[in-house]
Amino acid sequence: MFTGLSAFPLTPTSEDGIDERGFANLVARLSAAGVDSIGALGSTGGYAYLTREERARAARIAVDAAGGVPVMVGIGALRTSQVRAHAEDAQNAGASAVLLAPASYQPLNDDEVFGLFEDVSRELSVPLCVYDNPGTTHFTFSDELHGRIAALPNVAAVKIPGIPADQARERIATLRGKLPRDVAVGVSGDQFAAGGLNGGADLWFSVLGGLLPEHCLAITRAAADGDSGKATALSDQLSPLWTLFRQYGSIRVVSAAAEHLGLITGPNLPRPLRGLDPAARKEVAAVLDQILAE
Amino acid sequence: MFTGLSAFPLTPTSEDGIDERGFANLVARLSAAGVDSIGALGSTGGYAYLTREERARAARIAVDAAGGVPVMVGIGALRTSQVRAHAEDAQNAGASAVLLAPASYQPLNDDEVFGLFEDVSRELSVPLCVYDNPGTTHFTFSDELHGRIAALPNVAAVKIPGIPADQARERIATLRGKLPRDVAVGVSGDQFAAGGLNGGADLWFSVLGGLLPEHCLAITRAAADGDSGKATALSDQLSPLWTLFRQYGSIRVVSAAAEHLGLITGPNLPRPLRGLDPAARKEVAAVLDQILAE
Repeated sequence: MFTGLSAFPLTPTSEDGIDERGFANLVARLSAAGVDSIGALGSTGGYAYLTREERARAARIAVDAAGGVPVMVGIGALRTSQVRAHAEDAQNAGASAVLLAPASYQPLNDDEVFGLFEDVSRELSVPLCVYDNPGTTHFTFSDELHGRIAALPNVAAVKIPGIPADQARERIATLRGKLPRDVAVGVSGDQFAAGGLNGGADLWFSVLGGLLPEHCLAITRAAADGDSGKATALSDQLSPLWTLFRQYGSIRVVSAAAEHLGLITGPNLPRPLRGLDPAARKEVAAVLDQILAE
Repeated sequence: MFTGLSAFPLTPTSEDGIDERGFANLVARLSAAGVDSIGALGSTGGYAYLTREERARAARIAVDAAGGVPVMVGIGALRTSQVRAHAEDAQNAGASAVLLAPASYQPLNDDEVFGLFEDVSRELSVPLCVYDNPGTTHFTFSDELHGRIAALPNVAAVKIPGIPADQARERIATLRGKLPRDVAVGVSGDQFAAGGLNGGADLWFSVLGGLLPEHCLAITRAAADGDSGKATALSDQLSPLWTLFRQYGSIRVVSAAAEHLGLITGPNLPRPLRGLDPAARKEVAAVLDQILAE
């Protein structure tokens, strides 16, 4: 399942809980568009904010709405015992894989992070993807640690942060040299995805793919066909959106964009997160309208 | 209650849950030593790792064991609705104050952090202390934001990170200039505490105070008596411990030290956190034995 485009939808959530119908519609839309897999309860899916019960419920909704497209479910939490509970719930919900980030409060050392993956991976009956996202976890993996973890049973993929296009090929090759051959390497950081795919990544774990799957599939397919120029050009057409992602945070931008497209209503981010203010929403709407008109 | 020494004990926690007897003993020991207040479920108290039920139970144990010494309880969480629930539980347990850090997964902006404190503070019937700890929350307060939040109802104190001694007086005076006059300023970062107290802070929120209350009270009382030289000298005697705090993280050092003193047994940190390895434990034991022999 670790190939092509893995699309990460928002889990629309307000003080009243998850908008279950809205979430199911977001997932079904990705399945209809033909994404290769769906990443439920990723960072954009708000995994860190939801209760165990909400997460178990969201995992079931995602699998049901995905219409056979494999669903990977985020199981991260600050405490290992909670991660193990989330893994159990995700598997019971029918997840085809799980995604685990070493979320931290007290800064973690390498042995603690290795221990987390060791404790969790051995209990799994589905593959695990290591989620390397220092911007939210505040943990930085060494390649040596990636290698140790990737050798654990059931570890099947690594999701790495964005890399500038001119460094992507070398970075991915270096990392692959530390990993077992059957472990996939996927890129994230949407603005860098075309460069990562052109540079040899197996797949793209995509925030925007959870909202505009056709646009992201076109980039992914162009790179897979070896047309790196086309992949880059298609990504460059989205650059006003990448600018907004950097400025406001991608979760707030896709929240406002999904509202603008009429897919969900607001508020849809778990407090203390807030939706964008009216001026920023206008920016998002203008950029989105321009992209959809092209 | 925001004066003198506020001592923050560990909440000894293993995969089996909280060691309730061990925790009660740690708290009772602080009360017997005469600390001015006790901070239960601070960062060292593992608030971020515990379930709602564990936190409610720990709050009750702390209040019961404190023998009338006021107890402040940490209520932070990634989601506002969880913070509100923790605030309710802490107050029901008899907390004299609550402590709130803007813990983050998605990076928070100023309006979101202000909104968090606004949503929570208005429902309180006890004072709130703002917990500014960028090392764990990854949020950096501006003084302007501190001023906005400190003007909210029930906000009574600010816990700020450590400041080098030569900058403490100016830093504290600058911050006070932004706050209502009745809002207390307390320092943390134990190695910097003497400088902060000498520089005019109202109190010290102390990790080591949760383990060696007499030593920390001696520093606090010297500063309160205007004997800044004595406060500094007493703190300097503990400098091998401050070095270990920086090297291994204070939570791991106080965990090993409490075991060495026979106060609790291991493991006592919630996984993925791990206790120190044998070599580091020997360092902790040697430093502690030296300090206690003086």
